[in-house]
Amino acid sequence: MLLAIPKSEIIERQSKFHSSMADRKIDCAILFSVTDIFYLTGFHFHPTERPIGFFIDPNQKTHLFVPALEHEHAEEFANVDFVHSYPEYPGLRHPMEYFKDALVKADFTGKVVGYDAIGYGSSMGYRGPIVSDFLDAEFVSIKGLIEEMRFVKSSTEVELIKESCRWGNLAHRLLQKYSKPGLSEIEITSKASTEATMAMIETLGKDYKPHGNTAFALFRGQVGEMSAFPHAVTQNIVLKKGDTLVTGAAADVWGYHSELERTMFVQEVSKEQEKYFQYMYEAQETAFKAIKPGVPCSSVEQEVQKYFKEAGVQHLVQHHTGHAIGLLGHEAPFFDLGDQTIMQPGMVFTVEPGIYVRGLGGFRHSDTVLVTENGMEMLTYYPRDLASMVCY
Amino acid sequence: MLLAIPKSEIIERQSKFHSSMADRKIDCAILFSVTDIFYLTGFHFHPTERPIGFFIDPNQKTHLFVPALEHEHAEEFANVDFVHSYPEYPGLRHPMEYFKDALVKADFTGKVVGYDAIGYGSSMGYRGPIVSDFLDAEFVSIKGLIEEMRFVKSSTEVELIKESCRWGNLAHRLLQKYSKPGLSEIEITSKASTEATMAMIETLGKDYKPHGNTAFALFRGQVGEMSAFPHAVTQNIVLKKGDTLVTGAAADVWGYHSELERTMFVQEVSKEQEKYFQYMYEAQETAFKAIKPGVPCSSVEQEVQKYFKEAGVQHLVQHHTGHAIGLLGHEAPFFDLGDQTIMQPGMVFTVEPGIYVRGLGGFRHSDTVLVTENGMEMLTYYPRDLASMVCY
Repeated sequence: MLLAIPKSEIIERQSKFHSSMADRKIDCAILFSVTDIFYLTGFHFHPTERPIGFFIDPNQKTHLFVPALEHEHAEEFANVDFVHSYPEYPGLRHPMEYFKDALVKADFTGKVVGYDAIGYGSSMGYRGPIVSDFLDAEFVSIKGLIEEMRFVKSSTEVELIKESCRWGNLAHRLLQKYSKPGLSEIEITSKASTEATMAMIETLGKDYKPHGNTAFALFRGQVGEMSAFPHAVTQNIVLKKGDTLVTGAAADVWGYHSELERTMFVQEVSKEQEKYFQYMYEAQETAFKAIKPGVPCSSVEQEVQKYFKEAGVQHLVQHHTGHAIGLLGHEAPFFDLGDQTIMQPGMVFTVEPGIYVRGLGGFRHSDTVLVTENGMEMLTYYPRDLASMVCY
Repeated sequence: MLLAIPKSEIIERQSKFHSSMADRKIDCAILFSVTDIFYLTGFHFHPTERPIGFFIDPNQKTHLFVPALEHEHAEEFANVDFVHSYPEYPGLRHPMEYFKDALVKADFTGKVVGYDAIGYGSSMGYRGPIVSDFLDAEFVSIKGLIEEMRFVKSSTEVELIKESCRWGNLAHRLLQKYSKPGLSEIEITSKASTEATMAMIETLGKDYKPHGNTAFALFRGQVGEMSAFPHAVTQNIVLKKGDTLVTGAAADVWGYHSELERTMFVQEVSKEQEKYFQYMYEAQETAFKAIKPGVPCSSVEQEVQKYFKEAGVQHLVQHHTGHAIGLLGHEAPFFDLGDQTIMQPGMVFTVEPGIYVRGLGGFRHSDTVLVTENGMEMLTYYPRDLASMVCY
């Protein structure tokens, strides 16, 4: 059972990144993105006020720059040639002074330096200079370069996403089972998530590292009338008969996400609810048919919008059809009119056209799919039909 | 029971922010910080690839700029004069073009504009221009201004943090009860967190909005030898007799955090473990005595470092003594040699000096405390002594 990206693949990513640098005539590079650092090193950490950075020097050696409290942790888990650290932030000497020392020693002065962000950024009370303030070099933005490397998933990445789908499916099954009038969304979520997590760790054992959330299923406040807010936040609402529910379920596997969302109904479905459910269902079918390699992401959204327009419910649409997913819950590219990225085999997307009817509820399923040579493969496998969506 | 910041206090915050702007001769302001927007508007949302911004115009009117999918949600929950929205990101027309329209219409052209970040930032596939690219105005950074307003907590904010401490305490009690050899950290965490969450929602009822996590208690991978990594991540480790454990527990209440961490031992404590535990315990006592208004945050760290030096364990220290806490889990200022911020009544800090012994374990308690007129008040109230720290 595959539960982590093998070291060899991490090293391959570094080589590929280095080739992209060479293509752009960049001598060396500095990265601050938490996700991209994890992608390139396998080092999972909690970002705080304390800066963490990654750099590749002109001799292609890889370096991680961390606070002292992460030094041994990084030595043990990061696939890099060197780990550097500084005592603390803010500290008597600013971390960026240590960073400068490390860059100068690694021969960055006067070089062409690629960077994703020109300084460390954190909302947690961090303040500090930008790299170009203290390093004499030619700076070239490479923001998005690694994000683009992440667009096409490897077969091992797809395996981890499939493993995520499996446990999201279980958590969702339990969520549906426990969704009854009189219980609050938090209560149902806690029960379903805990039970699924228990099964998950008993099955996967000690090799399972979530690097994120273990199995969970939830409503995010999308209960009853509130389900008409597509991104409502948990409101601790008590379910009642006839409520429309919009759910979400997943489990992170070594940092990889999947997305499973369903529109469900508490004990009974009105004609009105059924009508909007069917529009949503057909829109998702329309999207599935439009997904194939070689055409732009926008074409999927065009087909969905065309369907919604013909159905006369275009005014109820509030968001695009989907987004890529992987190490982040939302990633580029998007199934959006403005995204001309060409779909390629290995890309993984959510498919989630939604309509929202004020006073009645929200209608959105989300499935995670893989673009294949011929079309697409569903990675989530929860039932989608109306009859299966009623909670008794 | 107070479970939210009242609207009147939100409006007071806006007035105070506006006065700070006037002091700096700033006509109007733009904010992108998720936390600061929540602080100033009471609008809690999930940040994604879709830009969200807040602005105050030259007539002191407040505006929220959101994607279409948040429009009605914002109308209902945000304390602002106007809500603006755009169809989608990336969309056929970039969200920042709509943002420009809204700013121009609100009379930002040619004005002195304060900003926290010069553009929207997100790791979730967002790309876009910075505000100074499309708005002709004089830009002045006010990064940190609202963060500094957040330094001193109001009595209602302290009440919410106390409510958080109460449920963190219960979750931790259950974590300790369920910590036994042969069980994995995820198993114990899930059981304790679910049970505490259930008690929490039964007690607080439907008025409780977490705007974050419900009650939880966990280990973050700090189990046995791995507890020597101060920020280890969840590793799904199985507990064994004699393990050192470093825990964490809290519950978010309307977005407010608290922090409770304990060093515990599975069934038995060795002389070696006891020795380091006592150093840590004394260091925390030393910190408590040093906390009082009118002196710099650095003085607390100085006292703790002096104690560790005298005890001869300074080489085992890997981080500073604490940080402020509130809407974020870590906030400035810090109990750090480099932080000269003067402590004031109403500031809330964590107190968590730690020492880390490779091969044996980590030793860190964390308590949340309030700076008072005369010294400090403990907001967390879990036992701290060695005898209470053994899990049977």
